[in-house]
Amino acid sequence: MYRTKTCGELRLANVGETVTLAGWVQRTRKMGGMTFVDMRDRYGITQVVFEAPHCSPAAGELSGNETSPTGGLQGAANALGREYVIQVTGTVSERSNKNKNLPTGDIEIIATELKVLNASVTPPFTIEDQSDGGDDLRMKYRYLDLRRTPVRRNLELRHRMTMEVRRYLDSLGFLEIETPMLIGSTPEGARDFVVPSRMNPGQFYALPQSPQTLKQLLMVSGMDRYFQIVKCFRDEDLRADRQPEFTQIDCEMSFVTQEDILQTFEGMAKHLFRELRGIELEGAFPRMTWADAMKYYGSDKPDTRFGMRFVELKDVFAQAPGFSVFDEAKYIGGICATGQAVYTRKQLDQLTDFVKRPQIGAKGLVYARVQEDGSVKSSVDKFYGPEVLNVLKEKMNAQPGDLILILCGDDAMKTRKQLCELRLEMGARMGLRDKNQFSLLWVIDFPMFEWSEEEGRLMATHHPFTHPKDEDIPLLDTDPAAVRADAYDMVCNGVEVGGGSIRIHDPELQDKMFRILGFTEERAQEQFGFLMNAFKYGAPPHGGLAYGLDRWVSLFAGLDSIRDCIAFPKNNSGRDVMLDAPARLEQKQLDELYLKIDLPQE
Amino acid sequence: MYRTKTCGELRLANVGETVTLAGWVQRTRKMGGMTFVDMRDRYGITQVVFEAPHCSPAAGELSGNETSPTGGLQGAANALGREYVIQVTGTVSERSNKNKNLPTGDIEIIATELKVLNASVTPPFTIEDQSDGGDDLRMKYRYLDLRRTPVRRNLELRHRMTMEVRRYLDSLGFLEIETPMLIGSTPEGARDFVVPSRMNPGQFYALPQSPQTLKQLLMVSGMDRYFQIVKCFRDEDLRADRQPEFTQIDCEMSFVTQEDILQTFEGMAKHLFRELRGIELEGAFPRMTWADAMKYYGSDKPDTRFGMRFVELKDVFAQAPGFSVFDEAKYIGGICATGQAVYTRKQLDQLTDFVKRPQIGAKGLVYARVQEDGSVKSSVDKFYGPEVLNVLKEKMNAQPGDLILILCGDDAMKTRKQLCELRLEMGARMGLRDKNQFSLLWVIDFPMFEWSEEEGRLMATHHPFTHPKDEDIPLLDTDPAAVRADAYDMVCNGVEVGGGSIRIHDPELQDKMFRILGFTEERAQEQFGFLMNAFKYGAPPHGGLAYGLDRWVSLFAGLDSIRDCIAFPKNNSGRDVMLDAPARLEQKQLDELYLKIDLPQE
Repeated sequence: MYRTKTCGELRLANVGETVTLAGWVQRTRKMGGMTFVDMRDRYGITQVVFEAPHCSPAAGELSGNETSPTGGLQGAANALGREYVIQVTGTVSERSNKNKNLPTGDIEIIATELKVLNASVTPPFTIEDQSDGGDDLRMKYRYLDLRRTPVRRNLELRHRMTMEVRRYLDSLGFLEIETPMLIGSTPEGARDFVVPSRMNPGQFYALPQSPQTLKQLLMVSGMDRYFQIVKCFRDEDLRADRQPEFTQIDCEMSFVTQEDILQTFEGMAKHLFRELRGIELEGAFPRMTWADAMKYYGSDKPDTRFGMRFVELKDVFAQAPGFSVFDEAKYIGGICATGQAVYTRKQLDQLTDFVKRPQIGAKGLVYARVQEDGSVKSSVDKFYGPEVLNVLKEKMNAQPGDLILILCGDDAMKTRKQLCELRLEMGARMGLRDKNQFSLLWVIDFPMFEWSEEEGRLMATHHPFTHPKDEDIPLLDTDPAAVRADAYDMVCNGVEVGGGSIRIHDPELQDKMFRILGFTEERAQEQFGFLMNAFKYGAPPHGGLAYGLDRWVSLFAGLDSIRDCIAFPKNNSGRDVMLDAPARLEQKQLDELYLKIDLPQE
Repeated sequence: MYRTKTCGELRLANVGETVTLAGWVQRTRKMGGMTFVDMRDRYGITQVVFEAPHCSPAAGELSGNETSPTGGLQGAANALGREYVIQVTGTVSERSNKNKNLPTGDIEIIATELKVLNASVTPPFTIEDQSDGGDDLRMKYRYLDLRRTPVRRNLELRHRMTMEVRRYLDSLGFLEIETPMLIGSTPEGARDFVVPSRMNPGQFYALPQSPQTLKQLLMVSGMDRYFQIVKCFRDEDLRADRQPEFTQIDCEMSFVTQEDILQTFEGMAKHLFRELRGIELEGAFPRMTWADAMKYYGSDKPDTRFGMRFVELKDVFAQAPGFSVFDEAKYIGGICATGQAVYTRKQLDQLTDFVKRPQIGAKGLVYARVQEDGSVKSSVDKFYGPEVLNVLKEKMNAQPGDLILILCGDDAMKTRKQLCELRLEMGARMGLRDKNQFSLLWVIDFPMFEWSEEEGRLMATHHPFTHPKDEDIPLLDTDPAAVRADAYDMVCNGVEVGGGSIRIHDPELQDKMFRILGFTEERAQEQFGFLMNAFKYGAPPHGGLAYGLDRWVSLFAGLDSIRDCIAFPKNNSGRDVMLDAPARLEQKQLDELYLKIDLPQE
């Protein structure tokens, strides 16, 4: 047996016990006649003390250490390097100098035996909570990075989250059913990863971007409550915080309305917050229509940890024309930053630069400070008199000391998105985006279609199987762009953590949908034939949703990037720098697949 | 709300309640003035009764059915086809004619409302426990096949098994950690599925055949107790009962000996049998060395539900030379089939044909019957006197009425494998291979190396990281073929359900292993470089194992093929006939990947 205890479990109650620990050398310190070694494993750190050999005449009877006959135990301990793997036996003893920051800080081990299980060369960066290793180095040596407590904790949280997700869904009768990874590519599957088949030369599988159609087939099978925690794949640019392989909590239910689904998965979110964070989310999650989310937050995933909702100001300024920028703007919107009238000119210039950055693209920023006496001092004072500015103040519900920030533009949607960025920036500056505060809501009633400039046609906002809202079905013939869908996203702190929809189960409605989306019958058949065929055999009403597990864990762990909650992530070029993948194949492998590579000349 | 109850839960206690059910039409029967509809969902079948409209004068007040204004409810019920999806509201009523075979057989629903949620065309085969659909048809319409109770039960069992595996391992502090699916191909990865990367033109990922090296890296990370229920991939001929994608319960532990691992996973097997089958496996699993398994059963996965162990008979027949077949044989082995002396000449001829089939390849079969008076009557009576046959009887421990079956050959290993087939055949004929009996054991002490005729060198029996038994390490220099490994398989009913090994963590021993396996330093570096590099930074002693989930579920469900416990399996050519995958890609997709297909001329 390699160990009787872990490095995280010994307490005062264990004093006097003889124990054996195994783990890594975190650090060694020689102090006077003693050497202290901090031993680390997954469970914690324990201090081990190696005492100098007593000047006893019977030196041969010293506690033996086979690996270092001279110098005794302490000599061997002094020879230990960082990250050596050692096994120590000794007696648990109360520390005179207790370490309150360590759960094991009340005790130490007085070593009687030491065995080096494995040596280590010097690691390329320090294995500490705050490492000195850069991002690239830590990714190349990810197996060392994972020894660091903060990284390990993320993986532990991920494990506990999936355990709790399964426990919750299992208790409601959901079955976890594995769907295949090697499926077919669709003609529109531009981002599919494809996999050549050796047994079927010239033919390819595709890796699933999601098990969407397969889970719908399971509903046709009568599996009525399905889930799966499953890898999905997307071969695309990874600018944003994305990975070519990511994990979804994928769910689908039959014989349900949207309300049933929202209730079920609101319950899951509450369960997770309770079990994993000890947070009781009281009451029902607020529900916000997509239209309201855009109107008041300029985003379909509003961060509702704080207010600062948009106020539309077009009519305020229309009272007194003269400022051409406002006069010509189609949309003028403002936010009120409580207590921020103290912003200096310099800070306001910074904000102006912020909104004018190309990623945001606003033309400028108008501001108005509410003074202590209630009067308003603005950057557009020369165009508007105190009456207009007072109306502005009222409309914004601004109090003395508040700062009003205003953007305007030709395109309401575009300007709202700019104002959204400004709002988030102000929220961050004002400390309103606390990672330990959680604000959840449902965004509902998404538009059924989006106009694609690129394709010159309506595209499905979610996917072509999304069910329109019953009351909007007549609009399909008259004004499809106005049709809302039974589609919903769960949003937490400005992050979309899950989303889904009720699906169409009526073949006629599905046909109509394909027509509106510009699919010919052949193309619909080619692309979704097996699903449409399956639907002929008694498809139940059904719907579902999928959570992004990586995002969900990041949120719970307060991480900035999903990468930090993935054991072996890929970089922005889709490379695993530790494994050095992807890589070129040997000619023999290509030949067996009847493949030739035809790279462009550079 | 689509339903208030499922089709599986109503009992006598519910009589009088008004309920709403949703499900599929299993069958309809018109009897006299009434129509009976069996409604099915995932939870069971419930009988619904539609009564003929009463000859009341106020016909307009009949319980309405919008879809069939004439004929009333019963008329609408009569119009239902098989597999229609319906919603029924009615009153639970006690049946006069109870069906004892159905959990809901005591009650029926007297329908007051019927709504057709979706129609169905006629399914291509009957959705019954025993379907009339052939294998190919059921695979093409797998979503309908999954509606059948036996198939659905397999998926339910699979779900419960993975839940219990996770519960057990979690309770022991194992963390489930996802390893990447897009990894690197190795130059020897002949069976790797490869995946071209769009972002890295000309380069490929590979899908993992197992997360072996990744879980070893996790041990280097200090993750000390890892598991993962994970898809693995192998692009190879699928003759046997294999799938190109299959699921493993993959586990690894640090600071453990072989004994720790066997205890942990024996515990898991016991837990699963207890929770899923209600079977208490008493005592420790027997452990059999690989050498004994081959000697007594001719297999490294012996079916120990029954005895019939091999007895070596070379010395028995050597007493009286004369029968050249035995005289020249290097190995003679027999089994004793209790009570089978009644076998007729015809039956024995069948057995002889069985062992002579090319797949088995024996030259012939010798038999001996022990008569009621204790004398032995054999097919080699003319070569051996009663003394020799008596010694045979003693050695075989055969009793009056028993049948002794003997095979011989030049190659002991080959002949044992033939005798193994004969033993399994006899076990099956004698009813000794009951699917509801479970006999588990560990096969241990596997040979470290196997001689490969093809490669002309020693190959690792498991993989090159397998640790040799400590006491055999000196043999590495003198007689490597005799070295045994710390490798183990869990065997149940003649099926290998799991296997693993202790891994080498000492770089010097690993170097020696690579030398014996004929790896140059460059090739070892090229192929396993990142793992060997990781091992320099303090690798702990570690080991693990992997279970085949598909096999494990099949065993618990008593299935003949793993296909039956997979939602959407592939056929023997690796095709998904439902999705029609794999398939050709569009030229545009190939161009984006800079790939050309170069099929041989046919």
